[in-house]
Amino acid sequence: MSHWENYLATRQPHFLDKLLDFLRIPSISSLSEHTQDVARAADWVATRMRDGGLEAIQVIPTEKHPVVYGEWQRAPNKPTILIYGHFDVQPVDPLAAWTYPPFDPTIVDGRVYARGASDMKGNLLMPIIAAEALLQANGALPLNVKFLWEGQEEIGSTQMPGVLTTYRDRLACDLAISADSFQWTEDQPALVLGTRGACSLQIDVRGPESDLHSGMHGGAVQNPIHALARIIASLHTAHGRVNVPGFYDDVLPVSDAERARVREVPFDEAAYRAQLGVDELFGEAGYSILERLWLRPTLELTGSWGGFQGEGSKTIVPGEAHARISCRLVPDQDPDRILDLVSRHIRQNTPPGVRVTVTARRSGSRPYVMPADHWANQIAQEVLAEITGKSPVWIRMGGSVPVLDHFQSYLGVVTLPFGFSLLDENMHAPNEFFRLESFVSGQRAYCRLFERLGEQRSQT
Amino acid sequence: MSHWENYLATRQPHFLDKLLDFLRIPSISSLSEHTQDVARAADWVATRMRDGGLEAIQVIPTEKHPVVYGEWQRAPNKPTILIYGHFDVQPVDPLAAWTYPPFDPTIVDGRVYARGASDMKGNLLMPIIAAEALLQANGALPLNVKFLWEGQEEIGSTQMPGVLTTYRDRLACDLAISADSFQWTEDQPALVLGTRGACSLQIDVRGPESDLHSGMHGGAVQNPIHALARIIASLHTAHGRVNVPGFYDDVLPVSDAERARVREVPFDEAAYRAQLGVDELFGEAGYSILERLWLRPTLELTGSWGGFQGEGSKTIVPGEAHARISCRLVPDQDPDRILDLVSRHIRQNTPPGVRVTVTARRSGSRPYVMPADHWANQIAQEVLAEITGKSPVWIRMGGSVPVLDHFQSYLGVVTLPFGFSLLDENMHAPNEFFRLESFVSGQRAYCRLFERLGEQRSQT
Repeated sequence: MSHWENYLATRQPHFLDKLLDFLRIPSISSLSEHTQDVARAADWVATRMRDGGLEAIQVIPTEKHPVVYGEWQRAPNKPTILIYGHFDVQPVDPLAAWTYPPFDPTIVDGRVYARGASDMKGNLLMPIIAAEALLQANGALPLNVKFLWEGQEEIGSTQMPGVLTTYRDRLACDLAISADSFQWTEDQPALVLGTRGACSLQIDVRGPESDLHSGMHGGAVQNPIHALARIIASLHTAHGRVNVPGFYDDVLPVSDAERARVREVPFDEAAYRAQLGVDELFGEAGYSILERLWLRPTLELTGSWGGFQGEGSKTIVPGEAHARISCRLVPDQDPDRILDLVSRHIRQNTPPGVRVTVTARRSGSRPYVMPADHWANQIAQEVLAEITGKSPVWIRMGGSVPVLDHFQSYLGVVTLPFGFSLLDENMHAPNEFFRLESFVSGQRAYCRLFERLGEQRSQT
Repeated sequence: MSHWENYLATRQPHFLDKLLDFLRIPSISSLSEHTQDVARAADWVATRMRDGGLEAIQVIPTEKHPVVYGEWQRAPNKPTILIYGHFDVQPVDPLAAWTYPPFDPTIVDGRVYARGASDMKGNLLMPIIAAEALLQANGALPLNVKFLWEGQEEIGSTQMPGVLTTYRDRLACDLAISADSFQWTEDQPALVLGTRGACSLQIDVRGPESDLHSGMHGGAVQNPIHALARIIASLHTAHGRVNVPGFYDDVLPVSDAERARVREVPFDEAAYRAQLGVDELFGEAGYSILERLWLRPTLELTGSWGGFQGEGSKTIVPGEAHARISCRLVPDQDPDRILDLVSRHIRQNTPPGVRVTVTARRSGSRPYVMPADHWANQIAQEVLAEITGKSPVWIRMGGSVPVLDHFQSYLGVVTLPFGFSLLDENMHAPNEFFRLESFVSGQRAYCRLFERLGEQRSQT
């Protein structure tokens, strides 16, 4: 057993203790009453890095919540990696749905239940612990590391472009690694190749100046709910394909190799139906469920409202109707161009008799994809196979992680997602948990990843 | 000046005071928190009739809101008329759109602004005041009157069939008069020949068991808002005609005489557009605006909601979406048959991947039409011409007054609609108002109507 393996094995009770400590801090970034808790979590992470032997620790204030920086930079001619993650968590409501208290971590059957356990306080600690173990065992790291932990990922990472611009030189690196990532199942390791981008807009349909008596005026004016329904119905074909001209123009063709990689991912459709609580799945014809979720863009109505919604009934022709749309994007779709196309389609499909306003949110995120054959992916694949005894599958995430694109744009590096959460761990939901086995194997995987990456030549 | 004219003229400040009192009661029948207010309004009406000299006053409880009865039956060999109206009002939301508080009546430029001012607390008081004036002036009425005021017209008058069955003998009459009616414009009197029927239903679309992360799951399930939009869009052609098979099957052809009467009604399309605040009107091709409103049936969405509607955004595929529909019917459409046709159409046009429930409210009302040459219409025409100096036009109402059909079915009498609201008075909308000039001339018109009807021979 190498020295670091020995160090990790004997120190697990201590690291578990640290994880429970960290989980006790209710660092909910979206609620202003928890601002001090987010700051406390930042300080806690700074201390943890210092105790682990890292250097140049700094808690950097931003307009909202701080970011935390730390490094170990004493490996000349070795590559430099930047490790990213976040120490903020989602709100806990509905609290009544929790079996265990969200901020009093409880261990049951090898799982620790707490808000932030899976997303992503467990994942955040792994690379810090790995660095500590290597430093303790060898007196040095096999490469240069920089850590960048943020405190507002759950509210959109809006401060990150500013941080990346201001600290561009200090954050320079050969590769970024996001610890905010996933494995596929307990016995199936995985590497995340990409995430979808996102953009959103709101449609406001206005008809008569105020709600009208549906008897007195019904039949003489366009009803905003009818008009909005025609607009919404025009956005898809009956078979679930987005019907906006140009929407798919920039979608890169999916290679046979890529589709083959998706087919290799074990997927139980019946279990997925049961998980969502639907009798049948529905989506774009010609694509499997996982292809629809990972390789194809979507246009989803996230909310819609108009007219009378209260108790009882009110017989009106409503004055207004509204809807919100969120698109998920794949390479090479551009959020702003998609917003323009959808806006134009809505205007062109507006029935007579109403005025329509489209408000595009110009804060979308671009899709992110890393080639499977990138050297960092190849190394990560070998490390996971070595640690788990099984070859990882290549997966993608349907959600959006804006910083992946930001690291590309601002720092000019690709990001390797390397994390150990599983998809069933109730992220963003009641009874979030994390598998303690993942916590241990993730530390070991990071040690091996650091060693293997250290064998690469520096690009900077 | 006859005695009753003198009485009315000197007592106007008192009656205005009573109207304001009445308007202060928020008798919203559709909201359970206002149940006591509806009861208070019933008691207020009972007291007002007693103070006016009417007899046998009774507040009669029903399963929901009470009805109020009163009479004066001391005119042997004279006809008996039953006067109908309602003391309940519509809800007030959106409250922010009101310039004046809905239940603190405000007089501006000869108009009183309040919920219920036009629909129909002003109209309700007129025949009571007319009876009081005639009793005070002559010591007797020229005919027998019965008053029946209900407290749940705005929620469909569902208790009326029961009331009319139970009190059939007490309510026996030669003619019913509905005070819940209209004049055409300030200088154009009118008589209402008919009203449209109505029926309504709710659509509940259910997809995944709970809201889903639109990134993680978007693309793999049917979105309930998309499904609902397809259903709603399927209900009309792009040209505004109802697209439900069989919907128009029972619509009686409109005679040339009827269309000619409609053409005689002065109608300023530009003014109507301005009143509603729309740039263009919209409706079924081949019919004039008034024909669309009076002679043609409609299907209108009155409300729709689903997904996230709060401030900010929440990127979900919603678990549910909902909508409410209200149809307006013309002879000989039957509300229950229309509900069956619409429900079947919705089921047949439900996209895959969602479950849809249609809840039909089996409390619709049938359309009502009274022949223009009926003796009561002829008398009412002469009275209006005498009071206003101008011959009335024959109009219809697009709205529904279920009791018109009920009086025919349960009491075997036709109903003369005789009321003084104008169509621009924001009924069911914010800033409802009533013209105080109508309040006064309506009282006088009722006095003359009672006198003229008293000259008829009793039919009972």
